[in-house]
Amino acid sequence: MQSYPSYLLENAVNQLSKLPGVGKKSALRLALHLLKQDEQQVNDFAQSILLMKNEIKYCKVCRNISDSDVCQICSDPKRDATIVCVVETIKEVMLVEETQQYKGLYHVLGGVISPMDGVKPSDLEIQSLVERVASGEIKEVIMALSPTMEGDTTSYYIARKLKDLNVRITAIARGISVGDELQYSDSLTLGRSIIDRIEYKL
Amino acid sequence: MQSYPSYLLENAVNQLSKLPGVGKKSALRLALHLLKQDEQQVNDFAQSILLMKNEIKYCKVCRNISDSDVCQICSDPKRDATIVCVVETIKEVMLVEETQQYKGLYHVLGGVISPMDGVKPSDLEIQSLVERVASGEIKEVIMALSPTMEGDTTSYYIARKLKDLNVRITAIARGISVGDELQYSDSLTLGRSIIDRIEYKL
Repeated sequence: MQSYPSYLLENAVNQLSKLPGVGKKSALRLALHLLKQDEQQVNDFAQSILLMKNEIKYCKVCRNISDSDVCQICSDPKRDATIVCVVETIKEVMLVEETQQYKGLYHVLGGVISPMDGVKPSDLEIQSLVERVASGEIKEVIMALSPTMEGDTTSYYIARKLKDLNVRITAIARGISVGDELQYSDSLTLGRSIIDRIEYKL
Repeated sequence: MQSYPSYLLENAVNQLSKLPGVGKKSALRLALHLLKQDEQQVNDFAQSILLMKNEIKYCKVCRNISDSDVCQICSDPKRDATIVCVVETIKEVMLVEETQQYKGLYHVLGGVISPMDGVKPSDLEIQSLVERVASGEIKEVIMALSPTMEGDTTSYYIARKLKDLNVRITAIARGISVGDELQYSDSLTLGRSIIDRIEYKL
């Protein structure tokens, strides 16, 4: 048990140690680092977090994080509004954007169905996706969830919901990662990559 | 280059990534974690940091962090006010306190002399230590700085400053760490531990 020389320090350390991956020792290091900074710098630090939490909006269309009511991607006329990529969180939006391979829109579920963690379909942005597809313009929905049991369950649940809406439903390809050695791949992935084999392009 | 869907998010990520040991990727993880919390929780988080920075005091006597003008240790009548342990930062105060082996007071320098990092003696609480010792009550000053070049230089500098003040100057023992295997110790430390050998107590 450490005893802190100041209640204010202890309080800050307790708060910092609530961050994921930050233990009491790291939290103390962070607190002492902040103490050494200028008052202005610490102010900017805290304000940036408060502003983010209090001012950030969620796009009315895709539920992505946004500074306005409709996000940059949804309001970009150059993007293909007939394709929607379904992802778990905004992190995956950023990851897919980074690939520069996708010019459609997104739909951010906010998680995956997980009875273990108490996440029900109604906790996710599934109904809003169904309504979005039902409204007409969308021709293809790409499921881009993690290949975990929860991700697969969620994809299946959504696919069933969209079944009668006359929309093409696809999923991102599973297979051997680019650059991976075949000998180290797991047999499930390798089996899947054989079943889902594609025409060799010469 | 990642492109953030929101300027507010990007700003918070940039601020979080200024923390020591936090890269852009971890900062994004922390920001998204904070976004998921209640507004109240995020408020408490930011306020605890602002309060710490703006309200914390430094003890007038030993320069330790404190909630009042004189810290708990300096104002504790049960502590031996004739011994002062000189440490680099408040972290070392906490470490020494944890050992429960020391009942004297402290003096927090706020760093060590380091020409490489531009830290001069006048940037540290050395003059206040000299004045404290000169004022009379202190009989022993224990140098407890890191056994690095900067730490040793600082100890030497302080010892010279205190030379004529009729005070006993000691340094914490260097030697093999408790529990360490002798075969893995470095020769400098092992050599030092032979020179500084002590009477075996039966």
